Amino acid sequence: MSKAKLTEARRPRGLEDRGPAEIAAQRDMLETIRKVYERYGFEAVETPFLEYTDTLGKFLPDQDRPNAGVFSLQDDDEQWMSLRYDLTAPLARYVAENFDKLPKPFRSYRVGPVFRNEKPGPGRFRQFMQFDADTVGASSVAADAENCMMFADAMEALGIPRGSYVVKVNNRKVLDGVMEAIGIGGDQQTSVMRSLDKLDKFSANDIRLLLTVGRKDESGDFTKGAGLNNEQADALIEFCSPSNFEIWTTDKDNQALLTTTNILLKSIFQNEIYRSGIAELREMAQQFIAAGYGPKPTEPDRIRIDPSVVRGLEYYTGPVYEVELTFEVKGIDGKPVRFGSVGGGGRYDGLIGRFRAEDVPATGISIGVSRLQAALTHLGKLKSTKPVGPVVVTVMDKEKIADYQKMVSELRTAGISAELYLGDATSFGAQIKYCDKRNSPLAIIQGPDEALNDEVLIKDLIKGAAFAIASKTITDRDEFQARKKELQQSVKRDDLVAAVQKALGI
Amino acid sequence: MSKAKLTEARRPRGLEDRGPAEIAAQRDMLETIRKVYERYGFEAVETPFLEYTDTLGKFLPDQDRPNAGVFSLQDDDEQWMSLRYDLTAPLARYVAENFDKLPKPFRSYRVGPVFRNEKPGPGRFRQFMQFDADTVGASSVAADAENCMMFADAMEALGIPRGSYVVKVNNRKVLDGVMEAIGIGGDQQTSVMRSLDKLDKFSANDIRLLLTVGRKDESGDFTKGAGLNNEQADALIEFCSPSNFEIWTTDKDNQALLTTTNILLKSIFQNEIYRSGIAELREMAQQFIAAGYGPKPTEPDRIRIDPSVVRGLEYYTGPVYEVELTFEVKGIDGKPVRFGSVGGGGRYDGLIGRFRAEDVPATGISIGVSRLQAALTHLGKLKSTKPVGPVVVTVMDKEKIADYQKMVSELRTAGISAELYLGDATSFGAQIKYCDKRNSPLAIIQGPDEALNDEVLIKDLIKGAAFAIASKTITDRDEFQARKKELQQSVKRDDLVAAVQKALGI
Repeated sequence: MSKAKLTEARRPRGLEDRGPAEIAAQRDMLETIRKVYERYGFEAVETPFLEYTDTLGKFLPDQDRPNAGVFSLQDDDEQWMSLRYDLTAPLARYVAENFDKLPKPFRSYRVGPVFRNEKPGPGRFRQFMQFDADTVGASSVAADAENCMMFADAMEALGIPRGSYVVKVNNRKVLDGVMEAIGIGGDQQTSVMRSLDKLDKFSANDIRLLLTVGRKDESGDFTKGAGLNNEQADALIEFCSPSNFEIWTTDKDNQALLTTTNILLKSIFQNEIYRSGIAELREMAQQFIAAGYGPKPTEPDRIRIDPSVVRGLEYYTGPVYEVELTFEVKGIDGKPVRFGSVGGGGRYDGLIGRFRAEDVPATGISIGVSRLQAALTHLGKLKSTKPVGPVVVTVMDKEKIADYQKMVSELRTAGISAELYLGDATSFGAQIKYCDKRNSPLAIIQGPDEALNDEVLIKDLIKGAAFAIASKTITDRDEFQARKKELQQSVKRDDLVAAVQKALGI
Repeated sequence: MSKAKLTEARRPRGLEDRGPAEIAAQRDMLETIRKVYERYGFEAVETPFLEYTDTLGKFLPDQDRPNAGVFSLQDDDEQWMSLRYDLTAPLARYVAENFDKLPKPFRSYRVGPVFRNEKPGPGRFRQFMQFDADTVGASSVAADAENCMMFADAMEALGIPRGSYVVKVNNRKVLDGVMEAIGIGGDQQTSVMRSLDKLDKFSANDIRLLLTVGRKDESGDFTKGAGLNNEQADALIEFCSPSNFEIWTTDKDNQALLTTTNILLKSIFQNEIYRSGIAELREMAQQFIAAGYGPKPTEPDRIRIDPSVVRGLEYYTGPVYEVELTFEVKGIDGKPVRFGSVGGGGRYDGLIGRFRAEDVPATGISIGVSRLQAALTHLGKLKSTKPVGPVVVTVMDKEKIADYQKMVSELRTAGISAELYLGDATSFGAQIKYCDKRNSPLAIIQGPDEALNDEVLIKDLIKGAAFAIASKTITDRDEFQARKKELQQSVKRDDLVAAVQKALGI
């Protein structure tokens, strides 16, 4: 058959396929995070992938063009819909829509892919997985303190040892107070925060350019500056530099102290909003200590107060936090790579108020599952090997398919993952090659000879693979034969299931 | 604060939110299906939600307008992308793109939401969940026989008893042969198959209209007819009517027979393609019997050969099958409702050939998880109650939040789902009302009196709810007091965790 025109099998940029090892590892991760969130009293909610564009709002960082950043399309009634770009905006819509029937506070978790219509790059995809938890209707920063502790618990549940992660906490009000004190207001504040959010990625000099006249990156793209003068920029960069601080300590009664030598307490910044932010940080610190998450002399910090944390999203109004992996791994080029932030969150008291006459206090966190998975794989905390495949019943005689199918069916009934070889290859070698590709532990063989004796051969493919390597160094003929003999056994047809169970050690 | 303009919190039509009970039930279902698929040797694959529109192709039933049926949008390089409308078209792209490195046959499963841009209705959504398994590179109908047996196993694993479901099997070649014999060809065949696919929903008279001159539905919408003459239409309807047949039996040696009195063997249809379809049906029947899935005198059928099965999708080329729930439930209006088909599948040997010089044989099934979940809920096989909520530590004194947080933290460390009451209510009653809404088993209370004695109160909310009902009929004062006393206990602060564990029975 001649074909006029073939379609090219290809994917849009930044959208990935995934195989069994990755999928199994992610399933384990999601289960672990889910159990931690549930232990904190959060319950599951799911919202659809598509929402009306206006209900989601525009809160993405780095989006100055309208409609950029999200995937949007028009419904048949002309209304614009978008694929969700995070799991917070849909929650705000959900809570507003169901406000009266929900318990208040409403504590929910949500997990699933989100979509960003951005330029993809290494480790930067247009579809990726998030796992969020949010508390709506709680104005107390106790909810924020819980979020931070839950971040720490989730990391440890995932096998990341203490000292290999840290939860860094700040408060937008502190930064708002500093900006007010040095005369930065209005729209400039948003640009300033987006610039400062890059402190962990860019040099201080690049940040200064972003805060003042703008910066051209290596590819030649120009990012507009926030228009500050040099004094303002320097004051902010100094303020946000974590190396300047010893942020909290505890006194002999185990009470939290913010040290007085601290730049945080500089009198120049002492306006009302600044003081309110500092008070909230202190309150959270006190709760961390009470719950056992405070600084301890013998242990690395789990939670740290850090004025460099800003978070890029516009909608935050109070405490902000992120969880950062602190260990380094070698990148493909051999250079050390830090994974950095794998989750973030904070308080967004105005977001639900977009839908309602009154504001509704709310706060939440989001774990970047895809990013974290890459990190855990590097750390050796995730299975990255292909799962063990099925037992394969080979086809030695096409006329006997029904007999082979019966064997497979018996194995499956006993709970053993098993399959009939369904390919067109008739040679034994080709079928064993298939078994190896599937990572099968055993192959079952019944040729004419075995059928005559009412027997089957069970071939151990894992031992077989090991033997194939070892045999190169075996010089003794008897040992070679003895080892080779171990690789397969002949059993009566009726004993097939029992023999397979034994060979699999189950 | 006055707000200029509020956004309305609303969802696009046919897109649903879901709560914890539904989510937990679906998670259990997916786990069950996954285990069955894995027992059959299928391995997990994931593809992205968005694909290039041309790689997905247009294979939806009932889509005569271009671009209808799917959600599409343009990428920034002007190429059209669509949200996947099933899990088969993306698999075809995946296999074609990775052809050389995949084992052949390639057996994979995929699970996730799919999207249809269709008119939503009761039980008909624009986003719903499917769970697919496909075998690519196996031309033998043994692969199709496995699919049918796996359908049956999946239903039973989900708790649907034998007799409450049936897997119905047919072969497109049989129908192709009949159409050839009575002079139906070309594009007419597609219209005919789409019409016949509605046999389980519409009356024979409505099907006759669809096959001939067209049909106007209750809303006044007109569906164009396939343009057959009355003799052709009657022949097809008679052929496809399952009540006409006793399709398979077994002889005394347990071999499959297709009975000779059967309309299937009417000489008028005996062309080559028809005979090939019948031979494949017979081969599958033989394998069902060998594997123990054949008809048994003492049991309801698990698998049945049924000439009324057509499947609406265009791309099927050989065996087609669907799994149908056969029990009835009462609808909201009290009338009996049958759920009908909850999954379907078949062979689509040409689909991957869209991307490659040669055709690649392939076959697969899809379980409609959302639809099946609705059915299982009706059958009482799914938990439909809200999961048990967390233990709630109430806030009796806002100054003591850190102390309460410590209690919560201790409970969580012991693996107990627990939370601090984070709302603004200060009254005890309001906090207990919150606990009830959360379905909390226990509330922990430490007011000033308890704090003085270094004690906490543990209030049993489940017994409390039962008591609230029972107390109305208790007339004996002592009994009332004794029962009421059981509802809460006072324990030493240090014994909190042990007492909670005991109260929860863990």
